[in-house]
Amino acid sequence: MTTQNTLYRTLDAQGVRTYVASLPAIAARLGGSVENWTVREVSDGNLNMVFLAEGPLGGVCVKQALPHVRVDPSWKMPLDRTFFEAAYLREVFPHVPDLTTERLHFDPVQFILIVKSLSSHTVLRNALMLGPVNPQIATRIGQFVARSTFATSLLAAPFESVMDRRICFARNQTLTRITVDLVLTDPYHDHPRNHWAEPELTPVVQAIRADAGVLARIDTLRLRFLSCPQALLHGDLHTGSIMTTNDDTRVIDGEFATYGPIGFDAGLFVGNLILSLFSARDAAAQSQQIHMIKLFWASFTEQFLALWATENASKDQAARYYPATQTIESEKEKNIFIENIFQDMIGYSGAEIIRRIIGYAHVSDFSALPDTPTQAARKKAALLFAKDCLDQTHLFRNCDDFLSHLTHYHG
Amino acid sequence: MTTQNTLYRTLDAQGVRTYVASLPAIAARLGGSVENWTVREVSDGNLNMVFLAEGPLGGVCVKQALPHVRVDPSWKMPLDRTFFEAAYLREVFPHVPDLTTERLHFDPVQFILIVKSLSSHTVLRNALMLGPVNPQIATRIGQFVARSTFATSLLAAPFESVMDRRICFARNQTLTRITVDLVLTDPYHDHPRNHWAEPELTPVVQAIRADAGVLARIDTLRLRFLSCPQALLHGDLHTGSIMTTNDDTRVIDGEFATYGPIGFDAGLFVGNLILSLFSARDAAAQSQQIHMIKLFWASFTEQFLALWATENASKDQAARYYPATQTIESEKEKNIFIENIFQDMIGYSGAEIIRRIIGYAHVSDFSALPDTPTQAARKKAALLFAKDCLDQTHLFRNCDDFLSHLTHYHG
Repeated sequence: MTTQNTLYRTLDAQGVRTYVASLPAIAARLGGSVENWTVREVSDGNLNMVFLAEGPLGGVCVKQALPHVRVDPSWKMPLDRTFFEAAYLREVFPHVPDLTTERLHFDPVQFILIVKSLSSHTVLRNALMLGPVNPQIATRIGQFVARSTFATSLLAAPFESVMDRRICFARNQTLTRITVDLVLTDPYHDHPRNHWAEPELTPVVQAIRADAGVLARIDTLRLRFLSCPQALLHGDLHTGSIMTTNDDTRVIDGEFATYGPIGFDAGLFVGNLILSLFSARDAAAQSQQIHMIKLFWASFTEQFLALWATENASKDQAARYYPATQTIESEKEKNIFIENIFQDMIGYSGAEIIRRIIGYAHVSDFSALPDTPTQAARKKAALLFAKDCLDQTHLFRNCDDFLSHLTHYHG
Repeated sequence: MTTQNTLYRTLDAQGVRTYVASLPAIAARLGGSVENWTVREVSDGNLNMVFLAEGPLGGVCVKQALPHVRVDPSWKMPLDRTFFEAAYLREVFPHVPDLTTERLHFDPVQFILIVKSLSSHTVLRNALMLGPVNPQIATRIGQFVARSTFATSLLAAPFESVMDRRICFARNQTLTRITVDLVLTDPYHDHPRNHWAEPELTPVVQAIRADAGVLARIDTLRLRFLSCPQALLHGDLHTGSIMTTNDDTRVIDGEFATYGPIGFDAGLFVGNLILSLFSARDAAAQSQQIHMIKLFWASFTEQFLALWATENASKDQAARYYPATQTIESEKEKNIFIENIFQDMIGYSGAEIIRRIIGYAHVSDFSALPDTPTQAARKKAALLFAKDCLDQTHLFRNCDDFLSHLTHYHG
């Protein structure tokens, strides 16, 4: 887990070919011989190099950390983020084998992670920009969040194993710092990393930064992100971290993994669906995104509560952490637990929308709109809605209430 | 930090003499030569061996972990608890040099910790049993809790340093398991570690265990203890962990140190003052304990909020974690933060009272009462009050409300 080593070399396509050929189990998956393989770079995220290597029998995805941010070589960064992505997969894969990618190989010297390739899948963000998608994708992501977080929470395991995992992921400080700064701090102040091209947005940004309620809420969300280790989070669950076909959906890119509030994962996903909604070209697409948020939350709560009930039923009363009892009172405590996740989700979705429009890393969704004035108008509307998400705690009593406001807002 | 090693030897008084003589800096504190020293065992807690070594110039306290619980050799236990006590002192001493003991030496092979001796001090529990004490002792403990928790929280430091400390103390799992089991689980079920001699208590124990509200609340407190790492806690802040003279008060025995909710430290202290109240021999002593709880909470909140204000004033807005702003809205968030600590304090004080009467490790306070029927009646009253602390969340709106109920209950 050293972040500097003299053995490390950044791979190019030829390097990937040689590297894969040196691993018999991986080479066997590709089949044929090395000269039949194609290797192409498909780096898309901001941080890492990504290659697809394909042979007659199949393909793999090869991901390597760089000693800097991929899109900004002047921003130096330790290599160990690939370690945390590999560790995240190790922890959650047994619980979501149908919803993420299988880890095939991890090299702790070269910081190379190899997973099964998803060459027939599309990035969900792109699929949403192109037109209708199967809304059940959102149901599957609800299951992903429920199963990955429940399994790594205190509800499912003795606290010692949870603390051991927290010890591991509490070292993922470089990427946690990025989340704290880029998502939860910078957009609320003048900072050189912030940027937006549309002058129409400036008054809204000023209004957000002048709103004491928004600032108090983002402070609380920042503190809560760092001091509420409910479960192991993916940590970057936007629509660019999801690969999908019509009937198969996989979450990738778990390098931001950290223990935190479950509503953070949920909020990033919902925030990106809302960004997709505000950049939708027609009413049908808008309805689809609303429907997907509804499906996501219903699926998450149903799956999470079902796991909780099953876990409790399988244990002696004294071996259960929480709740030890099944009574009206404990159902009430469960409901408070879920309600807190919901309120976190609303807050973090607002933060995600704002940072994706005025912060360092924007989203491509709005580029699907026909002209700059329309883009600016939609971004402004999205910012104003996000401000509402942050402005008043508990403004939204439940998901229907939230979606009704969103529909009203957008319409 | 290995918990088994072939070099480890349990020291007796002669061994302590030889060991101290081998440490020139410690030997110099005692002065004279080794044959002038007195060494006596003063072990009082359940876990460790404790010796006082005194010479012509001064004395030191020598504490060594045993490979088992001191009072129950059949209960095996790793040695590393002394490491966590030494680490706790290292972290908090700079912030509370006047309220705890200075660490002079730590031996990670023999698991020996040497601190300045407090030979002129009395254990607070014993002082309370003997008669009036200076109520300002409670003010000082309020300062101790405020300063030690604030300094190790996200309010005072970049999150990276907090996460590094959490990584360290998340390994203190043996003693955290004791807290989870003995304080927050066992008393609410049949368990061979529970015991009480007075048959009059049995119906109250049954009522506690049959109360769905109490059980749901203790489940929540247990989960919160493990998933709300607000600050580095002492973890065992009862009146036996406090040494005092009339005008000097020192907290000792930090081996249970862990990150958790600040209200846990506060609740253990207040719970033990309440045990002292219910075992008081006269109305004056009862009033004193009520007064001390009031002083403790006032001192804690005043000191904590003062540190928060100072910390914020010393930083640029963007460098502050929480709150970044000073507005009515952020004051509201601060008040919610303090209110949550208060509610945690009430809950954990109730849990502490219950486990100290019907759990594994009882307190000596009630032995000051003249006869067994009186002891039983007072224990019963204390249990019923503790049940109220757990029965309804937010029953007590503030400290005056809480103390008024306590006065009414006891009177």
